[in-house]
Amino acid sequence: MSAYDELMAFQRQTEALAQVAGRLGWDQETMMPAGAAEQRGEELGAMEEVLHSRRTAPEVGQWLAAIDDASLDAVGQAQMRHIRRNYARAVRVPAQLAARIARTTSVAYGTWARARADEDFAAFAPVLSEIVALRREEAGHIAEGGDAYDALLQGYEPGATGEELAALFDDLRPGLVALRAAVLEQPAPQPVSGSYDLALQLALSRKLAETFGYDFTRGRIDTAVHPFSSGSGSDVRITTRTAEADPFNCLYSTIHEVGHACYEQGIDPAYALSPLGQGVSLGVHESQSRIYENQLGRSRAFCHWLYGQMTDSFGDMGVADEEAFYKAVNRVQRGFIRTEADEVQYNLHIMLRFDLERDMARGTLEVEDLEEAWNARFAEDFGYAVDKPSNGVLQDVHWAAGLLGYFPTYALGNVYAGCLYLALQDDVPGLDDQLSRGDLSAATGWLHKYVQRHGGLHEPRAVIEQACGFTPSEAPLLAYLEQKFADLYDL
Amino acid sequence: MSAYDELMAFQRQTEALAQVAGRLGWDQETMMPAGAAEQRGEELGAMEEVLHSRRTAPEVGQWLAAIDDASLDAVGQAQMRHIRRNYARAVRVPAQLAARIARTTSVAYGTWARARADEDFAAFAPVLSEIVALRREEAGHIAEGGDAYDALLQGYEPGATGEELAALFDDLRPGLVALRAAVLEQPAPQPVSGSYDLALQLALSRKLAETFGYDFTRGRIDTAVHPFSSGSGSDVRITTRTAEADPFNCLYSTIHEVGHACYEQGIDPAYALSPLGQGVSLGVHESQSRIYENQLGRSRAFCHWLYGQMTDSFGDMGVADEEAFYKAVNRVQRGFIRTEADEVQYNLHIMLRFDLERDMARGTLEVEDLEEAWNARFAEDFGYAVDKPSNGVLQDVHWAAGLLGYFPTYALGNVYAGCLYLALQDDVPGLDDQLSRGDLSAATGWLHKYVQRHGGLHEPRAVIEQACGFTPSEAPLLAYLEQKFADLYDL
Repeated sequence: MSAYDELMAFQRQTEALAQVAGRLGWDQETMMPAGAAEQRGEELGAMEEVLHSRRTAPEVGQWLAAIDDASLDAVGQAQMRHIRRNYARAVRVPAQLAARIARTTSVAYGTWARARADEDFAAFAPVLSEIVALRREEAGHIAEGGDAYDALLQGYEPGATGEELAALFDDLRPGLVALRAAVLEQPAPQPVSGSYDLALQLALSRKLAETFGYDFTRGRIDTAVHPFSSGSGSDVRITTRTAEADPFNCLYSTIHEVGHACYEQGIDPAYALSPLGQGVSLGVHESQSRIYENQLGRSRAFCHWLYGQMTDSFGDMGVADEEAFYKAVNRVQRGFIRTEADEVQYNLHIMLRFDLERDMARGTLEVEDLEEAWNARFAEDFGYAVDKPSNGVLQDVHWAAGLLGYFPTYALGNVYAGCLYLALQDDVPGLDDQLSRGDLSAATGWLHKYVQRHGGLHEPRAVIEQACGFTPSEAPLLAYLEQKFADLYDL
Repeated sequence: MSAYDELMAFQRQTEALAQVAGRLGWDQETMMPAGAAEQRGEELGAMEEVLHSRRTAPEVGQWLAAIDDASLDAVGQAQMRHIRRNYARAVRVPAQLAARIARTTSVAYGTWARARADEDFAAFAPVLSEIVALRREEAGHIAEGGDAYDALLQGYEPGATGEELAALFDDLRPGLVALRAAVLEQPAPQPVSGSYDLALQLALSRKLAETFGYDFTRGRIDTAVHPFSSGSGSDVRITTRTAEADPFNCLYSTIHEVGHACYEQGIDPAYALSPLGQGVSLGVHESQSRIYENQLGRSRAFCHWLYGQMTDSFGDMGVADEEAFYKAVNRVQRGFIRTEADEVQYNLHIMLRFDLERDMARGTLEVEDLEEAWNARFAEDFGYAVDKPSNGVLQDVHWAAGLLGYFPTYALGNVYAGCLYLALQDDVPGLDDQLSRGDLSAATGWLHKYVQRHGGLHEPRAVIEQACGFTPSEAPLLAYLEQKFADLYDL
């Protein structure tokens, strides 16, 4: 066997083990009995140690030294790009530091949950300071003199820089702030009302998943407190959740997670259990979940079909007609919480977090000043004050989990979804006609062809650029939102 | 840290990883989408390699050399007994041989399933010959001059020997053959009739599980094609199955698996994720599942309570009264299939397999003569001829899976259950009164105290002997069966 073949065989086992570890996480959220939590922590820790030792194994370094990338084909070169990058990141971080980060974030979850329940940011600040310090130290090892925030960001979005995202968001933010203000001056549309049978919600969820192309022979849907998609290759599972008064929570969570899952299920099977066999970045991943959920799933055309489906399932929903239903689906209202935000406001929540975490990572914002900075920025963009920490700086678990550099990928995904939707509309004639019949095949087929099947073959930004045929920017998303909400709110 | 502490920390991670691998198996039978089978094979293979390399790790050998067992307390010495034994077994088997066995048995499953469907033993014989040859080779490495069959048997039942089991079974067999013949001369009791709602079966299953002491905060029940129990420590899951015409299949499968699960759940939590933290042998495990299912669950007293429960759940069951119900639960009938056998006939099925596999392992029976040998022995013990291979030599998957030395632990478990039941009746006054009220707490409490909580602390035979206060033999089981079925069939 050549060094490349040996490396890929080793890598294949590592990827298989990573799938096992990921499925433990799925099990924990869906199936695990409550009393097993402590043992599960040890199981996950043991799997992490196995994976870490494989990711930093000296023989990988030896294979890397022996392989001449230029002698490989394009797929081989792309594999090597991922393996070299991941190995370099992994070996630069001292094992003791990695272990300290794991221990600290594992304790921090409980501290954060209690602080949130007690509305007490000061109780969370010390451990958050420690996390920021540890991840800055980690970033210092990875960056080797480069920007600390970029080093963290690139763990989720290879190739991206904070500077580039800051410029992108600077172009996006004023338009969103203005659109949001204009929309909220108008009378709010009626939401749906009544009670929605949970079993019927889940049945319709399954139908929606199939409609959007989810393959149940290689996946399954369960319920969990927080919806997620999990796994790659031929075992990609999603979860959704149900609330009796709000059927859209269940249905659009499902469509969102189906977007993630179809990306994973759609990757060329030749890449299975290799570095190319999974979504290339969080931003590109989010572009798929968002375009499924929003540009397609919340479109006027698709809402026509969905209105019929939901009327069949649930009868009267307390909305006058199809137009009122479409408005209810796309209702914009004041709020504090990112995960409950609509298309207009969502990215404002993200940009706030991006600016704050970037400042923390670069040492220009202290954790002790974080709550004040959060509240000031929120007031600036949203026009009213945060009423309590659980509606502000304590609302998300990400920082407690050590995820610094993760938030902006959500907004980047929305920007990418805007670009893809523009190109998709150009390329697929009669799209609205199809959506209004509940036929997603051409739209999802286009996304499969230009994005999903490539897995990790191209760099994140490149895969979007090649799919669209133009340089990604915030402009398509902004134009789409302005047009959609001007129409919805008679602006 | 001392060498012992280091070894135990290493071992703890290994046990945690073994739990993860075991849960992958659970997932495969209960949750996995069908299309994920191939990827799952790679995941399991990768986990097996991780586990194998830890079980044969040179540092374990170094720790073992550095530890003076005599300096440890009783628990430490018991841990060392397991670790030394398992390590010696693992390192004696060449890695290449272990890999060949894994590959061959993985292929053999499909060959066996097709041969069974085609009623064609000759199609299965070549791969079975290969498996027998490979496991004999493995046994040769492990036994180091000792008996080949014993080497395999002790992988499932430490300390047991084929000779000792042969003597035990020789004492058991004539009595069972005679009892079976006498019972089958009598008119067969009526079975229950009608259709049994599957959801109600599962609901009653859950109630039975609780009644027998299963802790749902550390486990769960799902359905699978073949019922099983899986996991140790604080995550012990069971499965059952349902058939509309036969509620006893579901209910007694549940009670059986609850017996296994309560053993695991009942082990002293101080032993969790250590070699002592799981059932000490398959025979002792089966003693728990069998005494729950048969001596307790199929007793006249418990059937009184169950009759009330089932009448409440299902209404008329087509049996005249409680006495007819008790007879239906304990119905003995002609058949070919081990897994469908009653208390009287079950062990005859096992002894047949034990004698044949022992002869194969020791080289005194060739695989090409196996079918003939099976059929001759079956006719001898059961009095009629096997009609087709799927009702004979091809009925069980065990040999295709490479499990040689496994079968006798089922009968040994029944023998142990007979011993434990005798001692339990002596120690627990008013047992039948309690069972007739559906109160299992004293019975399961006794088993917990004398067997379950010890986990791997004592050797398998010793834990039974200490619980009973007498030397285990076939006599209590035989006496119990003779008395029970003489009463049931007016012998």
